[in-house]
Amino acid sequence: MLKKNMLFTPGPTMVPPEVNLAEAAPMIHHRTPQFSQIFMDVTEGMKALFETKEADVFILASSGTGAMETSVVNLLSPGDKALFISVGKFGERWGELLKAYGCQGVELKAEYGRVISAKEVADALAKHPDAKALFTTQSETSTGVVSDIEGYAALTRKTGTLLVVDTVSSLGVHPLRFDAWGVDVAVTGSQKGCMLPPGLGFIAVAPRVWKAVEQSKLPKYYFSLPAMKKAIADKTTAYTPAITLIRAAKVALDMLMAEGLENVYARHAMLAEASRAGVKALGLKLFTKEGESNVLTAVEAPEGIKIDAVIKRMRDEFGITLTGGQGSMKGRIFRLGHMGYVNQFDILAALGALEKALSDAGYPVKPGSALAAAQEVFLKSKS
Amino acid sequence: MLKKNMLFTPGPTMVPPEVNLAEAAPMIHHRTPQFSQIFMDVTEGMKALFETKEADVFILASSGTGAMETSVVNLLSPGDKALFISVGKFGERWGELLKAYGCQGVELKAEYGRVISAKEVADALAKHPDAKALFTTQSETSTGVVSDIEGYAALTRKTGTLLVVDTVSSLGVHPLRFDAWGVDVAVTGSQKGCMLPPGLGFIAVAPRVWKAVEQSKLPKYYFSLPAMKKAIADKTTAYTPAITLIRAAKVALDMLMAEGLENVYARHAMLAEASRAGVKALGLKLFTKEGESNVLTAVEAPEGIKIDAVIKRMRDEFGITLTGGQGSMKGRIFRLGHMGYVNQFDILAALGALEKALSDAGYPVKPGSALAAAQEVFLKSKS
Repeated sequence: MLKKNMLFTPGPTMVPPEVNLAEAAPMIHHRTPQFSQIFMDVTEGMKALFETKEADVFILASSGTGAMETSVVNLLSPGDKALFISVGKFGERWGELLKAYGCQGVELKAEYGRVISAKEVADALAKHPDAKALFTTQSETSTGVVSDIEGYAALTRKTGTLLVVDTVSSLGVHPLRFDAWGVDVAVTGSQKGCMLPPGLGFIAVAPRVWKAVEQSKLPKYYFSLPAMKKAIADKTTAYTPAITLIRAAKVALDMLMAEGLENVYARHAMLAEASRAGVKALGLKLFTKEGESNVLTAVEAPEGIKIDAVIKRMRDEFGITLTGGQGSMKGRIFRLGHMGYVNQFDILAALGALEKALSDAGYPVKPGSALAAAQEVFLKSKS
Repeated sequence: MLKKNMLFTPGPTMVPPEVNLAEAAPMIHHRTPQFSQIFMDVTEGMKALFETKEADVFILASSGTGAMETSVVNLLSPGDKALFISVGKFGERWGELLKAYGCQGVELKAEYGRVISAKEVADALAKHPDAKALFTTQSETSTGVVSDIEGYAALTRKTGTLLVVDTVSSLGVHPLRFDAWGVDVAVTGSQKGCMLPPGLGFIAVAPRVWKAVEQSKLPKYYFSLPAMKKAIADKTTAYTPAITLIRAAKVALDMLMAEGLENVYARHAMLAEASRAGVKALGLKLFTKEGESNVLTAVEAPEGIKIDAVIKRMRDEFGITLTGGQGSMKGRIFRLGHMGYVNQFDILAALGALEKALSDAGYPVKPGSALAAAQEVFLKSKS
């Protein structure tokens, strides 16, 4: 088989060739008007993606986890109480961060595949009025759920608890209406919906958050928001920025804006609907019990099939990379990512590969059944 | 003038086109044997560059400052005393980091353009036997000096004080004989001697350091060395790595190893000697009073010449980027960087541009005088 490598992973995701080539342009110095222009363009582009006009947005040379850490160390002081929503591996990471920094994390936990409702958040906020912040994850890629950020924000706006949202895998996939909903802080990484390689983190900070930043006593230096704010006044960064990735970001953001944000969201909704229809047509069951995200489709491994071997073969022999489960989910699920630089014909490739690999592994497949189900979604779609 | 853009900046430096193109290759997923192989190759390549067989080397998605922070937060506890050598902006950064993390930094300060001798370090170690670590900078790019790391290490090996060296601009330029000298921790960034774009940090950790890491009580998560050590046992990183930059690093390290490390050092020594000879032939004075580095040449601005305007014109009209002074040095010096992907003909271009720009600015220049002085060095060189 002629292998064309395609990523349907939960990040890093496929990168447009135009963006790859922008990374390859000759180096420029960062303390120049030339770079400042690109840097500010990307900052403005990210504001558009976060759907904010009022927030400050900063670009970090780090992964998304570095951006998560930035939010914790700039908002809190040692011993501070904070709520965190834990419905998968990335929610748990908020808990690990709070613990590492000596804060008191109060966990709102749901079993994998489920979400925490706004009602549960309301109860927790009432029970813990002294919680300084609520840390949550918009799209939990370990289980395929999307959380009700709009619902949470409607509550935290009233209580004054700071709402911090990990949008690492959701930004540019699900709407994150930062200003309209009243989110306080949002963090993301470059390698998902932004259609970029990994290596950049981004953080959006609402104006009302700076008071908490001033009061925060947790130690920080590399991830200091005040240092970033001071630097951006001169259209620069406090420390050397990841120049090639930022130039690539300019190209990727221009592509997203040319498509139009609402169209981007609609495309992802269509790809997700088609993916779910496709796997269901194969007789497979979705792992996600509620709040299915448009980021990826998490599917239960069919009984009697060694799913990790199937996934590995798809990658090594077909060039089509899906992923299995992480941690306790290993061998129990597989995940078909459809975020970022993905269109409907890519989904046909992924489902075609899945039909073939499952069939070869002894699972009963009616040829084209997943494809037809997906195609039905595509043909009725206006995208 | 047909502009060809060339960087003689203190970082980021020029990147070989082969390395640029490696960055542009299609995205791959990081949890694959394919990426693990590249990741471990780069880890081994960086061990060679650090001249260590015994240390652990970790790759960070961060700038060099992130790698500096990693050393502080993993070695120390709140209130710990540490010495730091401050002979320029980057030495001062150690002091800022120690302060930010609530440690007691004891400054060994020399005026800009000078270094701290091993004798002075010996006195400080005797006076502060309770200092847990000594933080220093091998090449201080703000002033153009190189410090006597070998001499410092001979002392700290006896006292047991941990020697932490910022080699951000020096690695791959000046020898850093990690094992042979007995350095404890070295940190660097990608965008200098490594011939890479910015966005990667690296840290080398000697085996004897892990005991201090275990005892360290400063909070950390993204920069946790224990987390990195755990992940690398599985040939991976704790958080998503900067995949494209790491692939580029494989190409750059292969190029450096093909040239041969000792040849790389000799080339930089030659370029530095020629650069110094060139500016002196123009009647200019070196700013650096002792310990001139092979990383860059810092030169006093000639009287009556607005040096920042000259540097700006060289950049904007000739495409040749040198830099002026930072902070209090602004307008007083200019800096000609010659680290990384630079050869002797590049230096001729830089000096040629300098002759032209200074002459146009009214400084008396005998045409070709800097070029001839540099060429004299090149012709007698074996490189």
